[in-house]
Amino acid sequence: MLTRIDHIGIACFDLDLTVEFYRSTYGFEVFHSEVNEEQGVREAMLKINDTSDGGASYLQLLEPTRQDSAVGKWLARHGEGVHHIAFGTADVDGDAAGIREKGVRVLYDEPRTGSMGSRITFLHPKDCHGVLTELVTSRTEH
Amino acid sequence: MLTRIDHIGIACFDLDLTVEFYRSTYGFEVFHSEVNEEQGVREAMLKINDTSDGGASYLQLLEPTRQDSAVGKWLARHGEGVHHIAFGTADVDGDAAGIREKGVRVLYDEPRTGSMGSRITFLHPKDCHGVLTELVTSRTEH
Repeated sequence: MLTRIDHIGIACFDLDLTVEFYRSTYGFEVFHSEVNEEQGVREAMLKINDTSDGGASYLQLLEPTRQDSAVGKWLARHGEGVHHIAFGTADVDGDAAGIREKGVRVLYDEPRTGSMGSRITFLHPKDCHGVLTELVTSRTEH
Repeated sequence: MLTRIDHIGIACFDLDLTVEFYRSTYGFEVFHSEVNEEQGVREAMLKINDTSDGGASYLQLLEPTRQDSAVGKWLARHGEGVHHIAFGTADVDGDAAGIREKGVRVLYDEPRTGSMGSRITFLHPKDCHGVLTELVTSRTEH
């Protein structure tokens, strides 16, 4: 069961500049940052609020580390903006299996590693009314 | 001070079909629906979780009621997808004024009426790294 908005993924050309925009404009601070080589991104997580399921909601700022990564290709086509949204669940495997049975394409055969040790998968945006949708189980949930 | 992700605004061609997608795929139910003639949209709010500031996070599904509305024009250019993101604050007037002083364009001179009796304004996406950004004070906060 999806129990929270886990994060909003925002693609940017320059992570440091974008982090500074969110800090100076809104006061949001970097909660965590990392490089995910498999996804081909450098990222910063800005925690916005805690959520009623015991988790939290973040902005995830993403800069591609290579042009041929999914985010790099997306940026070249669209420019900066919201790249995906993510819902949190305690059971990404079970939810992804159930959603696949309903005919929505799940992009990974098995969940992969996401931010902060989470397990993630993605749903095809063409099956989700144009929204690239991630499902995420945080490290403390799995 | 911005204290929560209030909602993610998603533009769609057919509100009823999109509501049914979110219900049947994820189990999300409509919390509230309304027509906002000023904004030129029919909308449905799907509540996803409560937030640590006493508010909540929603998906806001938006169907234009006229082609020349902001959402109508956006849909014609982009197709379905994430239209904007919204941060919640107890003081939309004060936060908008402070953000304007930092050189970010605020689209309204004064906040207008948003979903569920809230007061809202928008920041220009070109000043926000490509993200159309809304600030919202809910009815119970103002």
